[in-house]
Amino acid sequence: MPVLVMKFGGTSVATLDRIRRAAKRVGVEVAKGYDVIVIVSAMSGETNKLVGYVEETSPLFDAREYDAVVSSGENVTAGLMALTLQEMDIPARSWQGWQVPVKTTSAHSSARIEEIPSDNILRKFAEGMKVAVVAGFQGVSPEGRITTLGRGGSDTTAVAFAAAFDAERCDIYTDVDGVYTTDPRICEKARKLDRISFEEMLELASLGAKVLQTRSVELAMRYKVKLRVLSSFEEMSDEGGTLVCDEEDIMESKVVAGVAFSRDEAKMTLVTIEDRPGIAAAIFGTLADAGVNVDMIVQNVSELNYKGHVGGVTDMTFSCPVNQVARAEKALDDAKAAGILNFDKLESERDVAKVSVVGIGMRSAAGVAAKMFKVLSDENINIQVITTSEIKISVLIERKYMELAVQALHDAFDLDKAA
Amino acid sequence: MPVLVMKFGGTSVATLDRIRRAAKRVGVEVAKGYDVIVIVSAMSGETNKLVGYVEETSPLFDAREYDAVVSSGENVTAGLMALTLQEMDIPARSWQGWQVPVKTTSAHSSARIEEIPSDNILRKFAEGMKVAVVAGFQGVSPEGRITTLGRGGSDTTAVAFAAAFDAERCDIYTDVDGVYTTDPRICEKARKLDRISFEEMLELASLGAKVLQTRSVELAMRYKVKLRVLSSFEEMSDEGGTLVCDEEDIMESKVVAGVAFSRDEAKMTLVTIEDRPGIAAAIFGTLADAGVNVDMIVQNVSELNYKGHVGGVTDMTFSCPVNQVARAEKALDDAKAAGILNFDKLESERDVAKVSVVGIGMRSAAGVAAKMFKVLSDENINIQVITTSEIKISVLIERKYMELAVQALHDAFDLDKAA
Repeated sequence: MPVLVMKFGGTSVATLDRIRRAAKRVGVEVAKGYDVIVIVSAMSGETNKLVGYVEETSPLFDAREYDAVVSSGENVTAGLMALTLQEMDIPARSWQGWQVPVKTTSAHSSARIEEIPSDNILRKFAEGMKVAVVAGFQGVSPEGRITTLGRGGSDTTAVAFAAAFDAERCDIYTDVDGVYTTDPRICEKARKLDRISFEEMLELASLGAKVLQTRSVELAMRYKVKLRVLSSFEEMSDEGGTLVCDEEDIMESKVVAGVAFSRDEAKMTLVTIEDRPGIAAAIFGTLADAGVNVDMIVQNVSELNYKGHVGGVTDMTFSCPVNQVARAEKALDDAKAAGILNFDKLESERDVAKVSVVGIGMRSAAGVAAKMFKVLSDENINIQVITTSEIKISVLIERKYMELAVQALHDAFDLDKAA
Repeated sequence: MPVLVMKFGGTSVATLDRIRRAAKRVGVEVAKGYDVIVIVSAMSGETNKLVGYVEETSPLFDAREYDAVVSSGENVTAGLMALTLQEMDIPARSWQGWQVPVKTTSAHSSARIEEIPSDNILRKFAEGMKVAVVAGFQGVSPEGRITTLGRGGSDTTAVAFAAAFDAERCDIYTDVDGVYTTDPRICEKARKLDRISFEEMLELASLGAKVLQTRSVELAMRYKVKLRVLSSFEEMSDEGGTLVCDEEDIMESKVVAGVAFSRDEAKMTLVTIEDRPGIAAAIFGTLADAGVNVDMIVQNVSELNYKGHVGGVTDMTFSCPVNQVARAEKALDDAKAAGILNFDKLESERDVAKVSVVGIGMRSAAGVAAKMFKVLSDENINIQVITTSEIKISVLIERKYMELAVQALHDAFDLDKAA
């Protein structure tokens, strides 16, 4: 039997009624002859509740215990989905990550899947089981402890299962009906895309468009998994949603495919730090060891012999998620106390946001950056940090201007009109 | 280091503040030099919520999926307790049932612990860990699926760990400060007992005094585990609570130690069933296979050749928890349809309660039953079913008379006065 992977996000399994609705969709695919692997998230709100418990208990938590706590929400949904399918007379059972087992690295809270043995589930399919319901987001480390894959990790679980079982397709059911040019809640002119390339989706995912976890798109690109994003709240059809696919499968594309943003950013600056070979490695090694996900990095031009410093000094600015600021501050202050780093001051700004334009067409079209900066300037929005890649330009701005910036850029690049 | 087992029930870990309070008690024992194994229940209300989800999803649920769902609450508490202890600079980590592993039978939802390998946790103690936090109530079957031990199963987990680790004592922290002559919410004259024998505790536990799970008392009796029940809401002391111990450790005891009751009982009667050898085995085998916990059983005097039945006929009455009535009805109707049983009618009464008097002194004192029946008769309470054992007498009565019966019996046997 061909295998199909179907993933249901938190809002798609938020209540017992929604679980039933999702199960009916699974039933439709089973009736077509598929053996189905269903990946489920925690019921909407559950994971946030559990994360809240952990953070209140221990602000600088042991990530192994964090994982043990927050992974429990998916286990509940997996069991309930299996029971719902059984009630529909569809042979089904649930698997928790350690039961498959979904083998991951030991990087707790952001583990990577290393192997998914398929024999256990395939044997059950051979025995007549039609649906394997797997708790997403979780796995087990070589030490036998529970790991999680980071927020949105169930998408990655789904794509990894699709790759391991050579699935015909991986359908991601979510609360939106596809991938949009930007978030319709921010910009009412946002338009749904029928297709988007893996590369563009990767940038959009990593830039804060919360439709798919970045890692899931990377995996899908590497293993050529046909990935479809579609809504669990609309009528089911074989043509709905957005197909994430290879660049060559997209007929015509615009220079800019979408505008992404990320609201909960923070900007941190190490003021007057000695500018010597290895200083960046010392700073960002310290932050990586503390589990801080550094995003943008800017180093100022160096000044020589500033205030008696031997050698040059500089300022180093970086951005990270706002909820990691306390952790970053502690790690850097500890490194200073230990003599590993030497800086005058650490400044943290918690009220910034990141806005980005993304498009594979930017590779061949010039002037996109210039146009973006002009649009923001016309709106009197100050740009604090800039980074670019081959197919995207990102800027850090004051959070209060974020919506204005997204709307202005969406208009300027004609994203409300089809290519 | 000597090992101490401390178990905290749902109300003792109902909030993050209460978990902190419980962790402080653990800290006191660690400071005395113990290696501590902490067994935790789910936060109060969580298990009921999960059971509610399962029952709404699938009234005749697959017990394997039930276990996978309802065991998740304990995992959350275990992780949070470990984090709380770490915040107090006490080296601690959490274990889920499958990680220890707590090896059980495959009888899902009412599994029995078969083995608890101690090497894994003892090695961690040897490495300097002071507290092992273990999720109660759960284990893993030979097939690698999650099992649970029945409601209140965390008590059993605690006693089993105390036996496996040869612990000095097993302290059960709960929302009451010990074992009472009856439930103080029903009878204000109820009095706390300083000591109670394993045998009496066993009867009280199995009769609905919800302080300890029956199985935990059985295990403690068999393995001579010193078991103490005490409140997590009072000041900690080495002398508080009730010690559950051998009969010979109790100086003087009364004929009746306590009055127990169980509110959520149902009475079912198979009307006009053929009376032949093997009929009871057929009925109760059917019910056992369906997972119905039958308690009291009464068979009426047989009638010969009733309404054309070949051979004798009789009525068979039994009691079971009220939430298992639907399951029992289905199992019996199915057995009738399959020709395994032949009865005219199945009557279910959902509004009965069980009231019992318990005491080891009953072995040598006569007239306890007669006195009990007289007391109930004086209150005009009709007795529907009676069962007795060496140290207890139980009756099934209409639920609305339950409180009245408990109070009258408590008075009649002078339970408000010490021996």
